[in-house]
Amino acid sequence: MKLEKLVGERFKEKPSDCTVESHALMVRGGYMKYVANGIYSSYMPLKRITRKIEQILREEMDAIDGQEVQFPVVMPASLWQESGRYESIGKELVRFNDRNESPLVLGMTHEEAAVGLVREYGQSYNKYPFMIYQIQTKFRDEARPKSGLIRVREFTMKDAYSFHTSQQDLEQYYDKCHKAYERIFARCGIPEVISVASDSGMMGGSISHEFMLLTGIGEDSIAICPECGYKANMEAADSIVINQKTQPSEQLKEVYTPHQQTIADVCAYLNSDEKASCKAVVYQRNIDDKYVVLFLRGDLEVNETKLTNYLGFEIHPATITEDCGLQAGFIGPYNLNGDYIVLLDNSLKGLNNVVCGANKQDYHYTGLDMERDLPNAEYHDFAKIKEGGICPCCKKPAITISRGIEVGNIFQLGTKYTKSMGMTYIDSEGNTKNPIMGCYGIGVGRLAAAICEVHHDDYGPIWPKAIAPYQVHLCAVRPDNQEVKDIADDLYQKLLDKGVEVIYDDRNVSAGIMFSDADLLGVPLRVIVSPRNVKQGVVEMVARDKSFSLTAPIENALQEILNKL
Amino acid sequence: MKLEKLVGERFKEKPSDCTVESHALMVRGGYMKYVANGIYSSYMPLKRITRKIEQILREEMDAIDGQEVQFPVVMPASLWQESGRYESIGKELVRFNDRNESPLVLGMTHEEAAVGLVREYGQSYNKYPFMIYQIQTKFRDEARPKSGLIRVREFTMKDAYSFHTSQQDLEQYYDKCHKAYERIFARCGIPEVISVASDSGMMGGSISHEFMLLTGIGEDSIAICPECGYKANMEAADSIVINQKTQPSEQLKEVYTPHQQTIADVCAYLNSDEKASCKAVVYQRNIDDKYVVLFLRGDLEVNETKLTNYLGFEIHPATITEDCGLQAGFIGPYNLNGDYIVLLDNSLKGLNNVVCGANKQDYHYTGLDMERDLPNAEYHDFAKIKEGGICPCCKKPAITISRGIEVGNIFQLGTKYTKSMGMTYIDSEGNTKNPIMGCYGIGVGRLAAAICEVHHDDYGPIWPKAIAPYQVHLCAVRPDNQEVKDIADDLYQKLLDKGVEVIYDDRNVSAGIMFSDADLLGVPLRVIVSPRNVKQGVVEMVARDKSFSLTAPIENALQEILNKL
Repeated sequence: MKLEKLVGERFKEKPSDCTVESHALMVRGGYMKYVANGIYSSYMPLKRITRKIEQILREEMDAIDGQEVQFPVVMPASLWQESGRYESIGKELVRFNDRNESPLVLGMTHEEAAVGLVREYGQSYNKYPFMIYQIQTKFRDEARPKSGLIRVREFTMKDAYSFHTSQQDLEQYYDKCHKAYERIFARCGIPEVISVASDSGMMGGSISHEFMLLTGIGEDSIAICPECGYKANMEAADSIVINQKTQPSEQLKEVYTPHQQTIADVCAYLNSDEKASCKAVVYQRNIDDKYVVLFLRGDLEVNETKLTNYLGFEIHPATITEDCGLQAGFIGPYNLNGDYIVLLDNSLKGLNNVVCGANKQDYHYTGLDMERDLPNAEYHDFAKIKEGGICPCCKKPAITISRGIEVGNIFQLGTKYTKSMGMTYIDSEGNTKNPIMGCYGIGVGRLAAAICEVHHDDYGPIWPKAIAPYQVHLCAVRPDNQEVKDIADDLYQKLLDKGVEVIYDDRNVSAGIMFSDADLLGVPLRVIVSPRNVKQGVVEMVARDKSFSLTAPIENALQEILNKL
Repeated sequence: MKLEKLVGERFKEKPSDCTVESHALMVRGGYMKYVANGIYSSYMPLKRITRKIEQILREEMDAIDGQEVQFPVVMPASLWQESGRYESIGKELVRFNDRNESPLVLGMTHEEAAVGLVREYGQSYNKYPFMIYQIQTKFRDEARPKSGLIRVREFTMKDAYSFHTSQQDLEQYYDKCHKAYERIFARCGIPEVISVASDSGMMGGSISHEFMLLTGIGEDSIAICPECGYKANMEAADSIVINQKTQPSEQLKEVYTPHQQTIADVCAYLNSDEKASCKAVVYQRNIDDKYVVLFLRGDLEVNETKLTNYLGFEIHPATITEDCGLQAGFIGPYNLNGDYIVLLDNSLKGLNNVVCGANKQDYHYTGLDMERDLPNAEYHDFAKIKEGGICPCCKKPAITISRGIEVGNIFQLGTKYTKSMGMTYIDSEGNTKNPIMGCYGIGVGRLAAAICEVHHDDYGPIWPKAIAPYQVHLCAVRPDNQEVKDIADDLYQKLLDKGVEVIYDDRNVSAGIMFSDADLLGVPLRVIVSPRNVKQGVVEMVARDKSFSLTAPIENALQEILNKL
């Protein structure tokens, strides 16, 4: 391929709407183009990268006995009604009617389609286990697409579904798939990806892991314990707080705290420690706007995933109206009257001498003793784990928090879908049972962007060999020099004949433009034929990752290039 | 792959909803499964076939300098508003709103997306020509999906778009693509595909060709002239009718024709030739239901494509109301008064002594002379060409009509999209111009089904080697015989080691079940290890297409199989 003919533009200026490097570089390098919010077209360099990733995914899925199938993008609503998700999933699921007013949805995941495909097939225990997978376009109407290909609405995904007759068999397969994922990320050039325990969210099931590439721009927070190796998505990590009463309990006392509405303000005003305060966070239930009032220790944050899982329904941050009975900024657990769902976080358990709202404009309490003043309270875990927090595994206060991009996930789904959708098999003793499922996803575009995020410099991506759009970037600097042109043309043809993926820049442009374009394409090996080199009888070979830069005699150039690949 | 593990069911009974063989066989063989009207999932055998087809498409598109890109499935309505197709296309285009009420569409073709991707890139003449293509899922809300994968709503398509600075350059590329298509169909095992002139329909542009696989179940009718080689889709073929007055003109006379409403009835009743009659076919304009009355010779049929192209708006068959002024069954061109769009087909030109409706209940005219009685009439071509009709090319009355499945199409689009969407370039003299486009499509699933339609027997598909899901179907008949099992296992392993795609049936089932399953999978070469063969020291090799059946000594079996592939 001649660079001159490559469709797409490369340019220097960082687009103003790009907040992460992978996005900026992939726009600047002519990899992708904005079509609509969270929707992009790919130019050939990106298409070549994603095809290589897809081939790696295919090989590794085939290696664990996966069978490649294809589900539709558009599905009848009835299929999603069977599982209950047509109702339970929010606006992420695109719903529309066809010309006959039949309700359809756009596939954002394919558990329903997978069960639909195999439920007649899998009627006898001896068909199990099996795994089917596809690599297909999906659409999820994200509220806030961002960061280029990291969080989009339309995406290509490898999604796999396994079916088993016992939990033990699922677990064995789950481990096998875990190892396949490790191989996939290693082959794609990011062996540093770690797997962390995760929340199963809307997928159902219990055990699940996310594969995280740690980077500052990651949207996920991961709790890691360097002491014992515990790793979990913060969404899923238990927050453990152990309170000890260091002082005798004071009396409960109403104090005037004018205009002190945040817990930080109040504590500063009263000269009290936030760890001895109780703050309220208020939500409303989506379906009827009923208030959910959650109390937790003032220094902690709410983990909304755990909260939603506990509640079993969707919520949103509350709008506190004048007549709802809640005193915004002054809400406390003592003497709170009204038709609210009231929840207490574990972090409050056993505290005394607590500052909290008095449910009265401009007043707080001091001296609250949780046991004494709220004797029948129930506590649950709704808080985010903190840096330095107690490890849920080894119990040492050693937790560190890192940011990461989720590049893959695996779930043990159990019988959630097979039960709701009536998929059964007859076991060896003649009993009717529901198969147990696992599911396993990797987003192709996000993976490409994540790799770029950790493999780039200021000038462009540095693609790992296995997924690079080309292996060799051949530059003929000053192709108007006949000798340069002849040598470069000859090398180009010989590389093509050897089946090497080569992009050839023989444009009559400055070396500066040539090299900055090459940097943006991020091809592992750059080969330079220039008047100066030719005079010395050599070509130059430079690694994009700067690991080497050397010259080879022109007559050995082909062999040297092949050796380097 | 062991057949025992292959997900999907194979069965004998023809499903009642399958009207064509490819559909029935692909359902019976475990290739595909119904999800919704015109929407299917694919099991692995079909996925393997379509992947091979896609690879052939990719190679041939790359060979004519195509660059693989990817457009989104979901696009903003605004992109389609630019070209005007958001309004002009009917319900086939799925329209819906996202969570923010932004209007979106599902891609049924990607001219708009293609222009959107390259309009900034292609601003200078020296970037041209170039071609971009994708292989992607599309959705078209067909009114009447049918025939399995032949006419679906969701489909995978290779669609390519070329951009040029002159009509001549487009034509050269168009020819190149035509030849690439011939190679594609030949490689897929259907070299007999012919290209025919076609109607450009909603795509815009002028010259276009469809690639047709002739088969009785085809939805398209193709006019072929065996004399000169003219080939055209009936939709696009000119109908030439030359009338000669053989008798002197009689007087125009109103005759009583009670209850004779069809032209055939009237002609029989009046003992007149249909070729000397004039029939009316009535439509209504979609937007306002205004009547369109078309007259043509009684023995001919309306070509609605030509009619719609002439009118420039969408129409539907009329509902003739009591007060509309039209006398259903008695409508004629003479003395027809009312606010109708009235059209006359070429086939009426120069006729005399014509029978036609008298625009009065139970009355017809006889003796109509078109020139005399309708002196200012204009005639156009609205009729379907007929078997035995005049060839528009060599003018001999030699036309034959065949049925065919359209397996590909190529269009010269001109500047329809670049103009409407404001894509321009600066030519070498500094002038601003619109690039000229071509587009080129092949539906992957339909192609697979079409191949099956012409390559099958009563027992299953007979897949051409290049697209077969596997190359060898190895049967261990009576695997409970240890010798059979050992020899077959050994052969299986050796074939895998050689990289041969082999499906291995070592189930403990009858030879009958084994062979009928093998027939349904349609793999080119069947290799049978059975107790009887083993006793003779041989294995059996049978071609699925019955071109050979032979035995080979066990020790040479591997080599013989490799020779046959």
